[in-house]
Amino acid sequence: MQASPVIIREAVETDVPAIVALFADDPLGGHGDTVDPAALPGYRAAFRRISASANETLYVAEREASIVGTFQTMVTTTMTARGSSSMIIEAVQTRADCRGQGIGAAMIGFCIEKARADGMRLVQLTSNAVRKDAHRFYERLGFSPSHIGFKLKLK
Amino acid sequence: MQASPVIIREAVETDVPAIVALFADDPLGGHGDTVDPAALPGYRAAFRRISASANETLYVAEREASIVGTFQTMVTTTMTARGSSSMIIEAVQTRADCRGQGIGAAMIGFCIEKARADGMRLVQLTSNAVRKDAHRFYERLGFSPSHIGFKLKLK
Repeated sequence: MQASPVIIREAVETDVPAIVALFADDPLGGHGDTVDPAALPGYRAAFRRISASANETLYVAEREASIVGTFQTMVTTTMTARGSSSMIIEAVQTRADCRGQGIGAAMIGFCIEKARADGMRLVQLTSNAVRKDAHRFYERLGFSPSHIGFKLKLK
Repeated sequence: MQASPVIIREAVETDVPAIVALFADDPLGGHGDTVDPAALPGYRAAFRRISASANETLYVAEREASIVGTFQTMVTTTMTARGSSSMIIEAVQTRADCRGQGIGAAMIGFCIEKARADGMRLVQLTSNAVRKDAHRFYERLGFSPSHIGFKLKLK
């Protein structure tokens, strides 16, 4: 059986509950995400901040009218590398029961093509050191694990 | 002898040549940075893109009226962690002949205090895996090397 196609599109505000459900279902992330309705206003506020940002874009992956994944891109310019621009990918999540079906590859492939079309010098992301499957996945797509990602939690 | 104080301030366009010189002098970065005047217009254009960006800020560290370091911050909101905001630090560089004098600690300390004051959930950055001294430095400041930083060069 042929899998239905995965459609990547920018998220709209009505997608927010489905996006939150993807993160709430992640056993490794540990970011305290929840589908508790009391948390929804905070998520909606975040959605609006991202939508209002000129260099951040939130996407969803849709298959058969269901949201099966999400990711976010950010474009940044630095003075290094002769003042080039890069794409940072953040908050990549595939629905737990849809893994291993090419959704992640469709999402990251979309980012790579968009970054190339927009003249970015590189695409970068960080992945939790415990996510070994994700690391193999990114290496298969051509990413190099050249850096250490340091985080300092403030709250 | 007491070291002169390090002042952290936002960069202005006349700082661009001094900032470029910091990166051009880095043997490990390998980003092709150069003080060749032919490259200056590209750096100036990058400076203007950063200045125009609502969530990116370029800083310099100054000591005795000389630029001895630079870094850039970016504020991003994601849907994870209940829609929280984080600070990403990019393009940290201390002048080669001024290392080990607390300039890096002053720059990163500034970032941490600003992120805390602005209510950020965390501060994050990536560091090239070969920069072992930098890793010890970030760990001393409280950062955890919890992630792998993946990069895919497009050009």
